[in-house]
Parts: sequence; C-alpha cells; structure tokens
Amino acid sequence: MDRHKEFLEQVIDMATKNVKDGLGGPFGSLVVKDGKIIGRGVNHVTVSNDPTAHAEIIAIRDACKNLNNFQLDGCIIYSSCEPCPMCLGAIYWARLKMLVFAASQNDAATAGFDDHFIRKEMEMPFEKRSIKTMKITPDTYLAPFKEWIENEKKVEY
Amino acid sequence: MDRHKEFLEQVIDMATKNVKDGLGGPFGSLVVKDGKIIGRGVNHVTVSNDPTAHAEIIAIRDACKNLNNFQLDGCIIYSSCEPCPMCLGAIYWARLKMLVFAASQNDAATAGFDDHFIRKEMEMPFEKRSIKTMKITPDTYLAPFKEWIENEKKVEY
Repeated sequence: MDRHKEFLEQVIDMATKNVKDGLGGPFGSLVVKDGKIIGRGVNHVTVSNDPTAHAEIIAIRDACKNLNNFQLDGCIIYSSCEPCPMCLGAIYWARLKMLVFAASQNDAATAGFDDHFIRKEMEMPFEKRSIKTMKITPDTYLAPFKEWIENEKKVEY
Repeated sequence: MDRHKEFLEQVIDMATKNVKDGLGGPFGSLVVKDGKIIGRGVNHVTVSNDPTAHAEIIAIRDACKNLNNFQLDGCIIYSSCEPCPMCLGAIYWARLKMLVFAASQNDAATAGFDDHFIRKEMEMPFEKRSIKTMKITPDTYLAPFKEWIENEKKVEY
C-alpha cells in the first residue's frame, strides 16, 4: 500500500510540474513492472497538437516501446486522476493487471475537465449522440474481416 | 450519401489491404475536411508494438498533425467498423462533427475482436472490474488541479 502511495505521489508531482512548465493539463501517469518504472506520461494535448496525448496513453505507449511488446501483462498503471473512457479503453487493450489512481472524475470536472459528457454519450443510441453518427454498409463491408479470418499469417492481439 | 459511401469503400479497402500486407488488424479510418482527406490510419497494434495504434487513433493524430491543431472541428471521421470505447473517446476529445462507419461491433466480434467486454467493464463499479482498480488519495492529490485553476498561462483544451 505504501509503495502504491509513493508511486501516486510521484505522478501527482509530475502532473503539477506539467502545468507549471506550461506543457499541458494537470495529469500524470506511470507504468510499473516488478517495482520498476517502465513508462512515463504527462498530458501533452496542446503542446503536441494531439488530442490523444493524455498521460495514460503516453505512459502506455512508452512502456510498450521499452518492453518491445504490445501488451503490458503483469504491469500496474498509476494515474493522478481517474482515467477518461479513452484511457480506460487503452488500459484494457494493453492488458495491464492493475490501475491505481488518486483524484476522481468529479475532482477533474471541478477543474474544467468534464469527461462525464463522453461517458453519457457512449451510453446513448447513435441517433441521440451530439456527434452525428451514421452506419452505412457498402457491399464490401465484411471483406476486411473475411480476409482476417482466412489469413494464416496474421498476428492476433 | 454517395460521398459518404465512397469514403467508406476506401477505408474498407485500406482495412483489407492492411491484413493482406501483414501490417495489423482489419480496420481502416479516414478524417475528411471539406471533402478532402486530411488524415489516414490503419490498425498497426502488432507491427508498431502499440496497443493504442487503432486505425481511428492514427487517423486523428495524422489529421491533427496536418492541421497543426489539437481539435478537428468541422471534420468527418470514416471508419470501416464501429469504433471501440478508446477510439470513440478520442473522437469526442478531438471534437469531430460526424462519424460514419460500416461494420458493427457484432461483426467485429465474429472475427475475434470483442470490445463488448471493455464496454461492460466500464459500466461496472471499480471493485467488480477484472483489472484490479484502487483509489488512493495522498495529501497532495488535488495539487495538480489547484495549480491548473490558478495558472494564468494555461492553454485550455
């Protein structure tokens, strides 16, 4: 428990420093394996012109690069704040074993980061979402999956 | 409508070719502004050792790089398949105006890509999720938000 708290204190300091340095939003993240930091990230959305550059996404990409693997089995991700739906999705795809975070989504909303809106949108049927969403099925729409199923050289993930 | 279908046919072909070329999963995406393609992506998870390298994430990052902006107002994203929660989150953060997709999440599940699991996990309380999730609040846990709120030079996003 103390170890978790220490890593959290570190990501919180990274998040505060990121704002002080003018590099992005107040969020930090670390990926840890066997007690060793293998990935780091702070929010770089505005400085890198990348809306996906959240702390967790950057930390996961960094850890994968360092491990030379597209999965992070056995790893723990520490985040200064409860991950948004995008980052939580990434955490599942990366197959981390554990998530430890500090601030809640309500704390984030108080500072102007309201991902509650995105969570609600995801639960809505397409026709009610604020981003207009259309499903169209050209004749070929299943061809990619057919190719995947039949392809004997594919690398599954 | 015909224009939407043409762009979809193009992303479907990109997705099929991606599998044939052995570069990743059967998914493709395009970001279009004023009828012009400004971002492209195909799934590169395994080839780039990056679990976040889904077609939509890559297309959004590409479009933002080309526009030199962290938002994609007025842009449409075309996807060969219904976006997973990570990608749908990215679509909202990037503030695209419209999403057009072809295959459904059920079609994807038939080919072995089951993000239904992630969707269900997101709806669960922390203590029931398969990735162990803990909330710990060191004394400093609100410092990043305090710094953000008080910082007069911040770039909001």
